[in-house]
Amino acid sequence: MAEQISKIFNHCKNQGFFFPASEIYGGVPGLFDYGPLGVELKNNLRAAWWKSMVLDRNDIEGLDASILTHSKLLDYSGHIEGYNDLMIKCRSCGGRMRADHLKSKHCVLCGSPDLTEPEIFNLMLSTNVGLIDNKDSQVFLRPATAQNTFANFQNIYRSSGQSLPFGIAQIGKAFRNEISPDDFLFRMREFEQMELQYFIPPGSDDYWHDYWLQERLSWWQSLGLSSQRLSVDDVKPDELAHYSKRTFDIYYSFADGFKGEIEGIANRTDYDLSCHSNNQQDLNIQSVVNRNNESLVSMAIVDAQTSKQIVPFVIEPASGLDRGCMAFLCEAYDESVRANGSRRCVLRLSPSLSPIKIGIILLNANQVEQEGVGHIKRSLQRHVRGRIVLEFVGTESEIVERHDAIGTPFLLIYRRDASSISRDWSVISRSRDEGDEEMIGINRVEEFFFEKFRNHF
Amino acid sequence: MAEQISKIFNHCKNQGFFFPASEIYGGVPGLFDYGPLGVELKNNLRAAWWKSMVLDRNDIEGLDASILTHSKLLDYSGHIEGYNDLMIKCRSCGGRMRADHLKSKHCVLCGSPDLTEPEIFNLMLSTNVGLIDNKDSQVFLRPATAQNTFANFQNIYRSSGQSLPFGIAQIGKAFRNEISPDDFLFRMREFEQMELQYFIPPGSDDYWHDYWLQERLSWWQSLGLSSQRLSVDDVKPDELAHYSKRTFDIYYSFADGFKGEIEGIANRTDYDLSCHSNNQQDLNIQSVVNRNNESLVSMAIVDAQTSKQIVPFVIEPASGLDRGCMAFLCEAYDESVRANGSRRCVLRLSPSLSPIKIGIILLNANQVEQEGVGHIKRSLQRHVRGRIVLEFVGTESEIVERHDAIGTPFLLIYRRDASSISRDWSVISRSRDEGDEEMIGINRVEEFFFEKFRNHF
Repeated sequence: MAEQISKIFNHCKNQGFFFPASEIYGGVPGLFDYGPLGVELKNNLRAAWWKSMVLDRNDIEGLDASILTHSKLLDYSGHIEGYNDLMIKCRSCGGRMRADHLKSKHCVLCGSPDLTEPEIFNLMLSTNVGLIDNKDSQVFLRPATAQNTFANFQNIYRSSGQSLPFGIAQIGKAFRNEISPDDFLFRMREFEQMELQYFIPPGSDDYWHDYWLQERLSWWQSLGLSSQRLSVDDVKPDELAHYSKRTFDIYYSFADGFKGEIEGIANRTDYDLSCHSNNQQDLNIQSVVNRNNESLVSMAIVDAQTSKQIVPFVIEPASGLDRGCMAFLCEAYDESVRANGSRRCVLRLSPSLSPIKIGIILLNANQVEQEGVGHIKRSLQRHVRGRIVLEFVGTESEIVERHDAIGTPFLLIYRRDASSISRDWSVISRSRDEGDEEMIGINRVEEFFFEKFRNHF
Repeated sequence: MAEQISKIFNHCKNQGFFFPASEIYGGVPGLFDYGPLGVELKNNLRAAWWKSMVLDRNDIEGLDASILTHSKLLDYSGHIEGYNDLMIKCRSCGGRMRADHLKSKHCVLCGSPDLTEPEIFNLMLSTNVGLIDNKDSQVFLRPATAQNTFANFQNIYRSSGQSLPFGIAQIGKAFRNEISPDDFLFRMREFEQMELQYFIPPGSDDYWHDYWLQERLSWWQSLGLSSQRLSVDDVKPDELAHYSKRTFDIYYSFADGFKGEIEGIANRTDYDLSCHSNNQQDLNIQSVVNRNNESLVSMAIVDAQTSKQIVPFVIEPASGLDRGCMAFLCEAYDESVRANGSRRCVLRLSPSLSPIKIGIILLNANQVEQEGVGHIKRSLQRHVRGRIVLEFVGTESEIVERHDAIGTPFLLIYRRDASSISRDWSVISRSRDEGDEEMIGINRVEEFFFEKFRNHF
């Protein structure tokens, strides 16, 4: 991992963005907990995606499906057969490693040469529900949100009244037994996805594939990723997933020397809906799929013009919420050295994403004054969708420095006006990015921040 | 299940609030997917809880911890030993049933009398991560969010700068292998919790226990549950969970004859933080806990006044998001019979919770007019935190009826003004609850809805 990413990740850990999960017992590789700042960043990014996909449009419906998934759904989708790595197992210690990583005839874990032939290792996690532990009670922790969306296609098509083209958006946890999890948020075993399946008439897939690539690139940039650090990879045919006709991967340059995928936009054709359909022979399916005698549903819809049964094609922009958080943190991290040699760190996050929207500083105040500022916080909260915190303790410079370091875009500072006999308060707004201060009238505070945040979610 | 609940649940299924998970393959008992309306209701309820706990206060920090949990965390918490039912297993068919439910000497599943003695059946789901399937790689799907909060107590205490009393709030999925899941959202195997752990000085627990009971009752009522259908149970000492000194359960009357718990408010004393502490002998612990030689952390903090090490007490208001959704739907469901004998159903949800905030109806319009209304939607979206939908197709009465049935509080109806030569549009607001219509000036639309929603999240 690049040194720059380590530095940013450690900065964020120290500030309370995230912590290794179950750290007090040594942790579990690939699992992280989002702390007080991380959960706000994640909530903001989730809300921004939902707004762009569901609220701002008229052609996309939401879904929140269960994580535990019927084994047949992942069997017919091809995940039980296709979601594997070839692994060698050591008969001595039980350890596994990827067959293509084995460089000698000895197991790297314990040194024993008593190794199995390469065998299939499924990357999905599973558990058993119900009272009998057998194959019938096995369910999987979904490896992606997509299959639950396909399973609900007809439910949503019918109840929403949408017609093609339309989409189903879902945000939620997914799980993969990553062989080599990272020590930051990139390759996690439990992670959160933001996925859209956009259903379209067969034949219009190239158009919509390009459309969604442009939409998604614009979205990442609208929240602050710079175009120079974004790139698109047209995945080579022999590297495509089993369901994909063509995939664009959006890469972000987290640091010099480390580019990582933050979103994949796949043309899944009619593969998945066809996989899960009964009566496949009647549906004019274009993909090659296994016969399905167990599904209770046909996923075809009737074309209004031709009255023929058609199975819609699917364009799928699927992005990682955790990787997204990490990308915005890497973009925002700005370290400089002051004249006196000390380091200053500023997180230049978009106000839409900042964990704390406004810090209100009121030092050396009495209880009545503190309560007054509490009222101001509550009135501001009506216009600002996120945390506003009150700072009553400490020194102003320390508080300002901490808020710069966690990305708070605006501070509202009450300073006692030494020049006035009544020792009234002056009210100052400080902008993180400009670093400048602006005096605002005590009655204009609400209006001032209403304007600042009216274009930020 | 009461007939009334079945009726409401089926109404909500038909409208697209939720569907049985993996239904196309016969479903999995106890698992549900939230459809387009359900996900908005759930998001709204989640946001309302987060606002009341985190945004509106200054003493509560957020957390979003991983679902997969280190086995030692649930071992020291007492869940591996204590989170059980006594079950009898049939040696013939492998089926299990609760020992206290067995009425004859034959297994009810297959009829065989070849039964085991009662044995412990743990209600937690588990899986294995990593490359070796053994006890060390076993992790649990958390049965509640609480233990991840306790594990992060010191991380959050240190990074947030909070001092006692303060809280940690978390919303997220939890899993229990329920023996008898319901066929609606009450007893699910995968469900979502909204939990606060509020950390307080020892000795102040009775005060804060009462405080949180009142706060939480007010919150449920503020969003629309009626006080007559809410009740509080002071749980009998011999029915308390192993960690609890005293628990208040908040019950909601879902229908005549069916009361169910929607929230439990437990006084967990210093039990959990003590369980997970090393150096327990130095910490003035009041609970009886198992010795812990494996935790890397002491959960005590230093009392500012006495300089002594103290382990905070915990008051825990823990509520069910799914049960909450179901309670608000039961409260809101209002069925009446029209003069012509047909049934009319209205969901009288609070505007804060309604899945669709505003339906904009514009029928028989050209594309330019439709685009104009699209602009109005976007400007309204700035003031309204939730979906606004455009209705261009159908008849007005059908659209109104559907929006009543899904709980949309306001409709904005554009009607062509037949009396004017230019055939301009009249702009009408229709209120679901009053059922009345109000003409609004075409330039006052944004201001009108800003006022309607300014007090709704």
